Amino acid sequence: MKLYSYFRSSASYRVRIALNLKNLPYEYVPVHLVRNGGEQLKPEYRRLNPDAIVPTLVDGDDVFTQSLAIIEWLDETHPEPPLLPAAPRDRAYVRSVALQIACEIHPLDNLRVLKYLKHTVAIGEEAKDAWYRHWVESGFATLETHLAGDARTGKLCFGDTPTLADACLIPQVFNAHRFKIDTAPYPVIHRIYEYAMTLDAFQRAAPGVQPDAE
Amino acid sequence: MKLYSYFRSSASYRVRIALNLKNLPYEYVPVHLVRNGGEQLKPEYRRLNPDAIVPTLVDGDDVFTQSLAIIEWLDETHPEPPLLPAAPRDRAYVRSVALQIACEIHPLDNLRVLKYLKHTVAIGEEAKDAWYRHWVESGFATLETHLAGDARTGKLCFGDTPTLADACLIPQVFNAHRFKIDTAPYPVIHRIYEYAMTLDAFQRAAPGVQPDAE
Repeated sequence: MKLYSYFRSSASYRVRIALNLKNLPYEYVPVHLVRNGGEQLKPEYRRLNPDAIVPTLVDGDDVFTQSLAIIEWLDETHPEPPLLPAAPRDRAYVRSVALQIACEIHPLDNLRVLKYLKHTVAIGEEAKDAWYRHWVESGFATLETHLAGDARTGKLCFGDTPTLADACLIPQVFNAHRFKIDTAPYPVIHRIYEYAMTLDAFQRAAPGVQPDAE
Repeated sequence: MKLYSYFRSSASYRVRIALNLKNLPYEYVPVHLVRNGGEQLKPEYRRLNPDAIVPTLVDGDDVFTQSLAIIEWLDETHPEPPLLPAAPRDRAYVRSVALQIACEIHPLDNLRVLKYLKHTVAIGEEAKDAWYRHWVESGFATLETHLAGDARTGKLCFGDTPTLADACLIPQVFNAHRFKIDTAPYPVIHRIYEYAMTLDAFQRAAPGVQPDAE
């Protein structure tokens, strides 16, 4: 398998975690989202992924896009260890945590949105930072309420074994830290992050150790 | 089952389509996102759904949030008719179409984001409309490329039978029309919408025929 990835992309980071948890080897193909005017916008990459975003996973002739769809595919085709629990009600819960991050927080704070705010809406650096902070902080606050109030929360989002939810949460926390957002006000999120980062699969997926890290 | 819904909410609309496709009866509980300062922000609703968004699906003691997680749960617990194809590679494709809408288009154009742009970033009506239009049009353009280029596209996103992808696409097109965006430049999206709206499950899920329609 080939993973088209950018070291700092949260969505790429999610898939790297999942591949590592499954112990699946893959070839890392860097796509630099900033350099050369954005390598994701080049025609050869857009033929693979018309959205011009990372990640893209290629397996033989099959091309997969959208990080959550890729992880569900990995879980269906390489079931061990599972990244979703067995019971439908628990699967729904884990997916809802993942989607709360993937739909309510991340889309508002990714690179192309921040670029549009800066260049087209023409807002200043301060307003852009406030925007970023607002969506991360309000999203983390409600996520913390979910996690703190649910008996299924363990060392990780669902018990003590990594799931799709952790594969989404850890990159979002990393991203927040990079933008100097303190996660201490979200103690459950904070300790889940600290624990996950002691695990090999999460460590090897971290942006700082990718081939294209700067 | 009880569905907490707002007639115009795209995410609620997705779940209404899925419930109708499965022929599952449900009690409709309206949550008005605008009136009374936003009923979704009231403590009694937030106890159910800390995100303060719709939809929420309640089944006995179980509370489900996030429209895509709810639809996957419905598909696992009420498998007929299936809303995802059988083969993993096709399931990944259908999920990727759904997620392209749910992660790349919808989060940027929902009510709370438009409110933040208006009240906090303090941009004018024209810039807000341009923002809305930009994310819908760029999202539809790439989605059109996906759908037009994939042999699996039929009368609907995947063959001729409704899937999770159509449950996401139809509400997004409805939403775009409400904001006066012409979908003629996206002929595949346009004809899928036209066809879906001839089907009973989609017709009964439309905002205009909900109990809280205005």
